[in-house]
Amino acid sequence: MPLYTLTTQAGVLSHEAKAKLADDLATFHADYSGVPKEWVQVVFQDYAAGNGFTAGKPSAVAALILQIRTGRSAEYKRGMVQRLWEFVQQATRASDNQIVIGVNEVPPSQAMEMGKIMPEIGK
Amino acid sequence: MPLYTLTTQAGVLSHEAKAKLADDLATFHADYSGVPKEWVQVVFQDYAAGNGFTAGKPSAVAALILQIRTGRSAEYKRGMVQRLWEFVQQATRASDNQIVIGVNEVPPSQAMEMGKIMPEIGK
Amino acid sequence: MPLYTLTTQAGVLSHEAKAKLADDLATFHADYSGVPKEWVQVVFQDYAAGNGFTAGKPSAVAALILQIRTGRSAEYKRGMVQRLWEFVQQATRASDNQIVIGVNEVPPSQAMEMGKIMPEIGK
Repeated sequence: MPLYTLTTQAGVLSHEAKAKLADDLATFHADYSGVPKEWVQVVFQDYAAGNGFTAGKPSAVAALILQIRTGRSAEYKRGMVQRLWEFVQQATRASDNQIVIGVNEVPPSQAMEMGKIMPEIGK
Repeated sequence: MPLYTLTTQAGVLSHEAKAKLADDLATFHADYSGVPKEWVQVVFQDYAAGNGFTAGKPSAVAALILQIRTGRSAEYKRGMVQRLWEFVQQATRASDNQIVIGVNEVPPSQAMEMGKIMPEIGK
Repeated sequence: MPLYTLTTQAGVLSHEAKAKLADDLATFHADYSGVPKEWVQVVFQDYAAGNGFTAGKPSAVAALILQIRTGRSAEYKRGMVQRLWEFVQQATRASDNQIVIGVNEVPPSQAMEMGKIMPEIGK
């Protein structure tokens, strides 16, 4: 944790764009959260053209799901998703109605990282 | 949000079946929830034959994960997943033991759609 | 439910390794939880080499997300993820900084299995 999963249509992000975005996300996350950059995992899931839909019509949906530990304030998470939106939109050039971002929270006791049960936030 | 992610074995759903199901889901969701159809995102994730297992045996598992905002009643969600089950089973022809459906809830403050932090339900 | 989704770089797990791991997970889960082995669904999601990143650098990240019903104790979940870590690491040979495991919980009222809304834990 954190685990970023960015799902986009194949071809939207080049290898170079993915590498840049992964590094931008890791750097941003470490700065924003205070956790080591080494904890930040990013996986890009590409789907074939024709597998994304907005309002029931074909669309290059870009969906970012972020898994973090519970314990952060609403303000912290609000600020985070707003910044993530900018990263995703800049990299994918998707329009506002094609992007969705959600933060899933997992209690530290039920997540592992680096071979250890995650500590509570701030511990 | 909502974001529907339907994971099926490659070949189970044709392009036409996906397009029909995506439109059915978007129409159903807008009707059932009262949110604009434009908010409904659907992504199909295909996995290669041999990558799905039920009870440890190869199986064309069909898994639908739906991300919505927190704030709906248990009755609302129960009715929704029952209807979604029918959609998935009709489209995939999967047997009862190959389908799994789950609804994940994300607090509006930690989700964005259309470039904005999501409003609370009913706002 | 439970639904195991194991995301790894293509080539890390052979067909044989996936079949063995899927059966190991189903057997373990049934033993540990007391639910029928038939309920255990496993899907492997492969991503192309170059799509995984740790600390912003290319990395064969192995991410296991497990969806279960709410209602288990923290101790139950802690013991479970520790055992799952061993399974994943043994199968993938990933190093500690490439593995992430998280357990997502879904209230039984908003999940279906075998054509039925899930019962509460222990019911």
